[in-house]
Amino acid sequence: MDILAYQSDFLSYLDSNKINREPKNLYQPIEYILQLGGKRIRPVLTLIAADIFSGDYKKALPAALAVEVFHNFTLVHDDIMDDAPLRRGHETVHEKWDINTGILSGDAMLILAYQHFENYEPEVFQKLAQLFSKTALEVCGGQQLDVDFETRNDVTIDEYIKMITLKTSVLVAAALKMGAIVAKADEKEAQHLYNYGLNLGIAFQLQDDYLDTYGDPETFGKQVGGDIIENKKTYLYLKALEVANNADRENLMALYNEKQKNITEKISTVSAIFSKNNIPNYTHELIEYYTNKSFESLTLLNINDTAKKGLRLFGENLMSRKV
Amino acid sequence: MDILAYQSDFLSYLDSNKINREPKNLYQPIEYILQLGGKRIRPVLTLIAADIFSGDYKKALPAALAVEVFHNFTLVHDDIMDDAPLRRGHETVHEKWDINTGILSGDAMLILAYQHFENYEPEVFQKLAQLFSKTALEVCGGQQLDVDFETRNDVTIDEYIKMITLKTSVLVAAALKMGAIVAKADEKEAQHLYNYGLNLGIAFQLQDDYLDTYGDPETFGKQVGGDIIENKKTYLYLKALEVANNADRENLMALYNEKQKNITEKISTVSAIFSKNNIPNYTHELIEYYTNKSFESLTLLNINDTAKKGLRLFGENLMSRKV
Repeated sequence: MDILAYQSDFLSYLDSNKINREPKNLYQPIEYILQLGGKRIRPVLTLIAADIFSGDYKKALPAALAVEVFHNFTLVHDDIMDDAPLRRGHETVHEKWDINTGILSGDAMLILAYQHFENYEPEVFQKLAQLFSKTALEVCGGQQLDVDFETRNDVTIDEYIKMITLKTSVLVAAALKMGAIVAKADEKEAQHLYNYGLNLGIAFQLQDDYLDTYGDPETFGKQVGGDIIENKKTYLYLKALEVANNADRENLMALYNEKQKNITEKISTVSAIFSKNNIPNYTHELIEYYTNKSFESLTLLNINDTAKKGLRLFGENLMSRKV
Repeated sequence: MDILAYQSDFLSYLDSNKINREPKNLYQPIEYILQLGGKRIRPVLTLIAADIFSGDYKKALPAALAVEVFHNFTLVHDDIMDDAPLRRGHETVHEKWDINTGILSGDAMLILAYQHFENYEPEVFQKLAQLFSKTALEVCGGQQLDVDFETRNDVTIDEYIKMITLKTSVLVAAALKMGAIVAKADEKEAQHLYNYGLNLGIAFQLQDDYLDTYGDPETFGKQVGGDIIENKKTYLYLKALEVANNADRENLMALYNEKQKNITEKISTVSAIFSKNNIPNYTHELIEYYTNKSFESLTLLNINDTAKKGLRLFGENLMSRKV
């Protein structure tokens, strides 16, 4: 399991699939967002899974690309909805071009993702497209819940976990299962791998939430405190509401319900309330809970120990990341 | 070939596929737009084609629904891009809800369209999804050209025909071909039917352009003169630029390049220039040209005469429509 080789092969494949088509205004934004980089975690997971079950991970490159194109489609449309100016340190598509371009290029990306499955024979094609459609609809549902939560003051932690499961985890899980499908793995095995990804994805998103407030501004890459500025009801916020005393709770709710003039002060006040209430620890515990749940699925997998260790290491690295 | 039976069976099928899922804010707008009505021309074409080649048109209902869901997805996203307040006499989705809901519900519709193909076995599924993806990308390309044309003053008639071919005709053509695919028609036969639809679709859109200016306000259903208000460079406008004298041409270009205060006056001035320059006749001639081209494909089809006559009659009715 050579992650660097997967990454490098994926990037070569992405490059060799550059779209040089007309109309330029439709396809240039697609190339732009796909070349912005990112950790490429999802396509790498597709290749890992294919490698484990067949040894021929290169066969899974089209499926890996479909997953990455879909992921970037969600970024383009989500950035419009969130009115986000920056993505990976560069202008978002709707900022560099305009909202209409963002909508239409995003639509084309969703279709292009399906087209990558055409590299496979009918049975595999159908399985991949079916899992993809199911997953894509779940991701839309997760995004809708995220939007719904903005205007609700009674979001529970369970609902939050459900939302991030749909918005983030199902795609991580599906990325793995697609690799298994291409490698023609047994359905049961593919499902264990899916479950590994599902819980790993939840842990991954919780780690994201933690880093958004507690990441090192020097290395994090995004603005630390972004979630606090946008009043995102993350696990950190919801847990704080649960465990804090009345004064802290009311303070937090007031800070999240009014437009704040002084952003720096808001971030430091909120993160101080979080820290005082032991939220970093609660978050680490929950990350560990989902990481362990994820590793339990590994024990059920009928694959060799080296592969299991590799998947475990991948999960551990993901959770100890600072970026 | 019983068009009314196709329509009624399609509407029952649409009804039986109502989506009653969570999150409500994602799925209610989808039900809303699908229930707004419309002529249902595309799904009916899918059923016609299946009936001709297999006699079992009901088998094509899922494919017909995929086509209709996709068509309505394009309406939802196009209405956002065009800032349109009304669709079929009712509020557009982004007007009734908001832009973010329009974007996200539209995305979900594109995915739902693919899911309807899951009713077919792998080989048919792959053929349908492949044609669908190709067509959907072409439609996105056509929409992009339409957007590009807004800010260009050198659009040619050929480019306009290319744009409406992509934006409108390829879906009419694909709707027919999908019916043929479900009925397992010979590839050559399916292609003739596709070509019939492609040229019929161009004629259909030109008729749409004509009615937009010359339709009867009592029966047309949309605001007559909408294209003129929006400075749409339709065939009527482009042909007028070609054949008019300098004074008329400069007058037209001035009217299309400035924001007009008096809309009623603008519509009457522009349509007077069109009429004076014989544009209605030129348009009728071009509609006839593409209708005849469409009918030529019928002669190549290896189907019985009743079916050919039915397809011819369908085309003739479409071209003599007032709505």
